[in-house]
Amino acid sequence: MSKIVKIAIDAMGGENSPKKIIDGILTSLKSNSENYFYLFGNESEIKKQLDKNKSLNKYCEIINTESVISDDEGPLTAAKKGKNSSMWKAIEAQKENKCDITLSAGNTGALLVISRLLLSTIQGINKPALAGLWPSKNNLNVMLDLGANIECNEKNLLDFTIMGSALYKSLFNNITPKVSLLNVGQEEIKGNEIIKKTFSILKEKKTQNFNFAGYIEGNQIMDGDTNVIVTDGFTGNIALKTAEGTANFLTKNLKISLNKLSMLLSYYSLKKFKERLDPRKYNGAILLGLQGPVVKSHGATDYIGFAYSIEMCNKIVKSNLIEKIKTHLIDIDH
Amino acid sequence: MSKIVKIAIDAMGGENSPKKIIDGILTSLKSNSENYFYLFGNESEIKKQLDKNKSLNKYCEIINTESVISDDEGPLTAAKKGKNSSMWKAIEAQKENKCDITLSAGNTGALLVISRLLLSTIQGINKPALAGLWPSKNNLNVMLDLGANIECNEKNLLDFTIMGSALYKSLFNNITPKVSLLNVGQEEIKGNEIIKKTFSILKEKKTQNFNFAGYIEGNQIMDGDTNVIVTDGFTGNIALKTAEGTANFLTKNLKISLNKLSMLLSYYSLKKFKERLDPRKYNGAILLGLQGPVVKSHGATDYIGFAYSIEMCNKIVKSNLIEKIKTHLIDIDH
Repeated sequence: MSKIVKIAIDAMGGENSPKKIIDGILTSLKSNSENYFYLFGNESEIKKQLDKNKSLNKYCEIINTESVISDDEGPLTAAKKGKNSSMWKAIEAQKENKCDITLSAGNTGALLVISRLLLSTIQGINKPALAGLWPSKNNLNVMLDLGANIECNEKNLLDFTIMGSALYKSLFNNITPKVSLLNVGQEEIKGNEIIKKTFSILKEKKTQNFNFAGYIEGNQIMDGDTNVIVTDGFTGNIALKTAEGTANFLTKNLKISLNKLSMLLSYYSLKKFKERLDPRKYNGAILLGLQGPVVKSHGATDYIGFAYSIEMCNKIVKSNLIEKIKTHLIDIDH
Repeated sequence: MSKIVKIAIDAMGGENSPKKIIDGILTSLKSNSENYFYLFGNESEIKKQLDKNKSLNKYCEIINTESVISDDEGPLTAAKKGKNSSMWKAIEAQKENKCDITLSAGNTGALLVISRLLLSTIQGINKPALAGLWPSKNNLNVMLDLGANIECNEKNLLDFTIMGSALYKSLFNNITPKVSLLNVGQEEIKGNEIIKKTFSILKEKKTQNFNFAGYIEGNQIMDGDTNVIVTDGFTGNIALKTAEGTANFLTKNLKISLNKLSMLLSYYSLKKFKERLDPRKYNGAILLGLQGPVVKSHGATDYIGFAYSIEMCNKIVKSNLIEKIKTHLIDIDH
């Protein structure tokens, strides 16, 4: 039997929790029973959900916690007052090596701050970054930073390149990724000073762990020609949210334009379209650069989205992501 | 009879020119005959197109020029070598007050550099900006800067606010716009130092010319709750291109998913969908901050898109955009 992956789950974070958390675990167990779940949160609420399916008890342990960090809490207040929260206790368990990874659908800002407080950074990394999966023509890209660091220098962007490549290899069968820097043009002279410096550094790096492919522009993110897209957290966050907004706008307009009859006639085609682009399939942003991996599920996702983020946690631990990042750092003579 | 708007057109810029230029003029004349066109470019090529419809001669004058700036020319080389080009000569005619506005579908970088070289900036404005129209739930937004200035300070962002509001009023019946700053969150403490400083400045400004509505995030650009979106040229360019890429990706996937039968059955609905979001309807980015207005048409647009950008030029001149910007500057005690 393979090694069991121990996942610390903030069972109270996100909409509709803990119900969707438990339903997500149940769904994930259908395809993978190699995980064990430590569920942090209100014991009676979690137990009520677990009792609906007795088979779950074999895979779960509840750790009762006293409070929940709400979505509108500021990250610093949350970190200050949240020491007894489900989120804090989950990360603390990971810090004490009781678990391999933490998963939460709760307050993103609080998760970033508490993770940084409790888990130390990997030696050589100055700023941890938030990485996400982005659909493209061929498969999925890794993109980072999605908002953890508003201002980044060339050293940070180099770190993101190294960590993003390690993540890509962890999630996609150890394939060596093509890495691109997000910029406003493709010529070497384009962009601000920090991007130009990062370009020169990456151009000179000799490594087996990634292939640097230069700059890409915003309209090329989904072209499928590159695997890891590196940018600062401000730009990455704006790009990610602009893409989300555009997708919502288009699908709403499509619904308005299609009348009931053509909706009915195109039912299966539209279903296929929706399935191809289902955001639940790439639910989960990964905080990279700490001694332990932390995964943030979308707060509004349902149990299926949550099951996908459990699968992501399993892959990250089994592929030894943190060790991969350390090896990449040494390899590149960082 | 109303005042005739004199438009200097770089008739050689963009794909399929000068044919699409002349066809665009013909289309625009069907709804508005208040423009007169100075066509800069290869006389015989332009004449060949004009001769297809003799009625056009009444509205057009050809000025023969010797060269064309190609799309892959660097902006500085273009400015250095391009003194006899159709683009240069068109802007030069505007500088000499022979025309009210310049329109080009050619090389964007070259157009920005040559415009700045030939036309002086409005007193009080440090950096001209490129503004564009962006579809939203309710109508169209103005967004700027879309890429003219990679790095901007709070003074620049304030200038963009003033110029963007004047443009919005020019294009949309003098309606006082709501202005928002693009950021990674909506709380006052979010973002980098420059954005926070701009927020404080705008919060204190008392003016009748715009209403400051705070921050918006990338996913809210198309919500229709705001009219003018202000950002630096790096972020604006990434956001614009990411939105374009996302829209292309989705429509391509929709085509793949819909089989031939459902395409046929949904023909009119899909046509309606396409029409609602037709990017030709908001073709044209406006370079703001110079003593004369310059409009950049998308290089790849067709004659219909070009006709829309002619209509935009007409509105800009007739609404006295440059005077509006100057009045806004004085009003805000800049």
